[in-house]
Amino acid sequence: MSTRKPRRRARNKAVTFKLRQPPIRELKNRFAPAAPLDEEQLELIHQSSLDLLEDMGIEVLGDRALEVFRAAGAEVGDDGIVKLDRGLVEQCLSTVQGAFKLHARKPERSIVVGDNVINFGLVSGPPNVHDNINRRRSGNFADYKTLIKLGQSFNAITFYGNQALAPTDLAVDTRHLDTSNVNLTLSDKVFMATGIGAGRALDAAKMCAIAHGLTLEEMRHTPTVATNININSPRKLDDAMAYGAMQMSALGQAVVVTPFTLMGAMTPATMAGALVQQNAEALFGVCLTQMVRPGAPVVYGGFTSNVDMRSGAPAFGTPENSLANMAGGQLARKYNLPYRTSACSASNAVDAQAAYETQMALWGAVMGHGNLIYHAAGWMEGGLVASFEKLVIDAEMLHGMGGVLEPLKIDLEEIGLDAMREVGPGGHFFGCAHTMERYKHAFNEPIISDWQNNENWQLAGAKDAQARATELWQKTLAVYEEPELDPARKEELLSFVANRKEAVNKDGLAWEPELYN
Amino acid sequence: MSTRKPRRRARNKAVTFKLRQPPIRELKNRFAPAAPLDEEQLELIHQSSLDLLEDMGIEVLGDRALEVFRAAGAEVGDDGIVKLDRGLVEQCLSTVQGAFKLHARKPERSIVVGDNVINFGLVSGPPNVHDNINRRRSGNFADYKTLIKLGQSFNAITFYGNQALAPTDLAVDTRHLDTSNVNLTLSDKVFMATGIGAGRALDAAKMCAIAHGLTLEEMRHTPTVATNININSPRKLDDAMAYGAMQMSALGQAVVVTPFTLMGAMTPATMAGALVQQNAEALFGVCLTQMVRPGAPVVYGGFTSNVDMRSGAPAFGTPENSLANMAGGQLARKYNLPYRTSACSASNAVDAQAAYETQMALWGAVMGHGNLIYHAAGWMEGGLVASFEKLVIDAEMLHGMGGVLEPLKIDLEEIGLDAMREVGPGGHFFGCAHTMERYKHAFNEPIISDWQNNENWQLAGAKDAQARATELWQKTLAVYEEPELDPARKEELLSFVANRKEAVNKDGLAWEPELYN
Repeated sequence: MSTRKPRRRARNKAVTFKLRQPPIRELKNRFAPAAPLDEEQLELIHQSSLDLLEDMGIEVLGDRALEVFRAAGAEVGDDGIVKLDRGLVEQCLSTVQGAFKLHARKPERSIVVGDNVINFGLVSGPPNVHDNINRRRSGNFADYKTLIKLGQSFNAITFYGNQALAPTDLAVDTRHLDTSNVNLTLSDKVFMATGIGAGRALDAAKMCAIAHGLTLEEMRHTPTVATNININSPRKLDDAMAYGAMQMSALGQAVVVTPFTLMGAMTPATMAGALVQQNAEALFGVCLTQMVRPGAPVVYGGFTSNVDMRSGAPAFGTPENSLANMAGGQLARKYNLPYRTSACSASNAVDAQAAYETQMALWGAVMGHGNLIYHAAGWMEGGLVASFEKLVIDAEMLHGMGGVLEPLKIDLEEIGLDAMREVGPGGHFFGCAHTMERYKHAFNEPIISDWQNNENWQLAGAKDAQARATELWQKTLAVYEEPELDPARKEELLSFVANRKEAVNKDGLAWEPELYN
Repeated sequence: MSTRKPRRRARNKAVTFKLRQPPIRELKNRFAPAAPLDEEQLELIHQSSLDLLEDMGIEVLGDRALEVFRAAGAEVGDDGIVKLDRGLVEQCLSTVQGAFKLHARKPERSIVVGDNVINFGLVSGPPNVHDNINRRRSGNFADYKTLIKLGQSFNAITFYGNQALAPTDLAVDTRHLDTSNVNLTLSDKVFMATGIGAGRALDAAKMCAIAHGLTLEEMRHTPTVATNININSPRKLDDAMAYGAMQMSALGQAVVVTPFTLMGAMTPATMAGALVQQNAEALFGVCLTQMVRPGAPVVYGGFTSNVDMRSGAPAFGTPENSLANMAGGQLARKYNLPYRTSACSASNAVDAQAAYETQMALWGAVMGHGNLIYHAAGWMEGGLVASFEKLVIDAEMLHGMGGVLEPLKIDLEEIGLDAMREVGPGGHFFGCAHTMERYKHAFNEPIISDWQNNENWQLAGAKDAQARATELWQKTLAVYEEPELDPARKEELLSFVANRKEAVNKDGLAWEPELYN
């Protein structure tokens, strides 16, 4: 008996906590898009970016990529500069899909990319991680798993961007196998895989095929994975990015093309210049995917913010960043492309700045009709840190945004004129039947917002949002449950990882794409 | 020499700090309004609120108010219930002004109320005050002055709501004289005066007349002051509020009518019910002003949020609050009325919650096309506290919002294709001529956002936004300068205050309006 008791207590303790949150829901944007550019401005940006592609072009590294451009009719210089004329851009844009479904291994977790649907993604990419228990440290595999678990736990998150953090304790050439395996086993939500080089992209696709129980051939028309590639602004596409994108497109998987355009550093110090450059570079990447495989699912990415012109430090959640998030949507819609944008912050602390910057970017992204909103939970320090506390606070903001996007129910029963008559002037509605029927689910319930009066709040320890977030991510992890996955597929994934590690360690990582046609 | 030196040093020290911020600017909303209600829903709310006014009516306290309603043709019951039929409401609404100017004593500080202009107002009304130096305490006159000075200092603030806080150390019946005097001398921005009873409203108008060098008669067509009145939801208008509004309207000064409609407490626990009640009550107050003086400047106020249905505690910055801010704008525009809304938070700390709640409400208010956005800087704890730190942080958010609302400059020069050619693929734009010409004023400059990298931020003391705000309000106060005012008028204001105090202490405060015709 004495050995069983502690176990039971521990279990009971875990079961007492239940994260109360809105269900996973498909959010559709019913607001008119915020359009900071008028028609003339939009056209000038469009035309100027086509001028850029025609006259200046983009430098491309990688012979296989240059071959694709050449074969499609682009002008390829000896210096690796690729120029696309208007006609060719137009031709490539004629085959894009305005929306597509990204299939999760659990069908209910699939997401629509485009079609006015809004998806919020977990932070991705930081080299460091922070929480209030273990402080700031280099990204590592244990924390990677924790982030995936948290992303699985919060219903506001419907996808993962490329690698939630860089697990710097794992070997560079094989860590993508470990992270994809974690994404496929600790979560049933869709994810973007790192596509640095074709080998990584192909591995991710093969692992998704295993998890989904499909062949690569069957998956060709069933996008299950995506990768985000960056253009190295200004005007440079390197082979690692090009090959990752080409491989994904060849496999019928999705590519998000995102120029990394910080105004004043990678672009002119103007919104006009940044948008032209972003647009030219994004279209260039989009064209590449369509040259590889017309109709391949592809997303227009925008990542335009400004730097602090005194120090060169990147800034996020600025008015410029918010406006660029809106303007990017105008451009993406012009080309009938789904739109990826972000909700970021540059703050060093999980404080008011972290929240207001994220909100500024988030509202810009939502009102700009972003379809994939990256980094929407947990991004800190301009992308150098993934934060558990900020992840929780951001999840609260996203639940709130979900509430804003839910359609309103307005009818005579909801209005309740009879209840008003019953209550009378100066009364209150707490006890009336109309309220009693509804009070349990009347309003969006917060996950960490604290609305106690000051006295009670003081008595409860005067915990600020950050302290409450520390408690919540710990409780959430304590009750986290791994989603179901057929044990055979799980086993197959593990052996795929083991075999590939052996092969990569022996022969190196494949770099060039295998262009399936 | 020894006596002069410290003084010189102190002066130099003060002069070294200059608050870098955008200039005072008139912000026009160029975005399409966010419209959560479709046409049918809007019409149902409109019709239901007219049903409410026709069938149930509003309880009114105060014989002079009942007289006005009776004379205008309303049905006035012995129980003080006033019912307005559709025709009468329509008739009253036919005389409202869609926009008007509220004149400041310094002409450049005048604001347009309506016409798609957005104005952000300082916190008003809290009984308590908080800052990180002196902590939480009851509202007092010294802190009142500090708030007015801070409001004067931040360019994002263009008006003051009714009393920045309640100066509880001053006598209740005469404190309005002291606060109006402070508003008129420590600031040159427009303000709302407390209109609790006609006497206070009349005093405020007379003091404005002195400060502006006008007679009351001349001021009749020059609104210089406003008051916000609340309907005591549900369905009750008390004499203090009614008389304040009637007096202001009679004088040609502006009235903001704001039902205080917390869903689940003062209204049914539904958005539909709250909006119907808000609309009925707001229109009721609007009608009163037009009955007193057709064409009197009046503003449609919305203040709908929800309570925590478990504790009854009010919540702000919730999705419901944000949506109500948008929906209120749809209703106000339907009646061609300027629209007042708010940006509030329920947080007990100046933390991430304070910021994200305020942003949620603020974006709702801005995208809902609010013209007067109350409590936009410094409001805490659901209105129980005015906070100096939050004021600074909110000012930063408002400057940012101002940046979002500024028109974009998009032309070939701004785009800078030549600069892109000059920099070339993979280069950077820091040193190029296009950047050098612009870098000083390229981007919105923050007042407290910190974009340093983590190492430098740690070296600088790892100060979070709140700590930086504490520093900034102190520095701001240290260099605050009283705006110019003709010494004779200043003197006249002081003697008006002294004389009125004597009279009020002797004869009491006038309660009923003097209806100038």
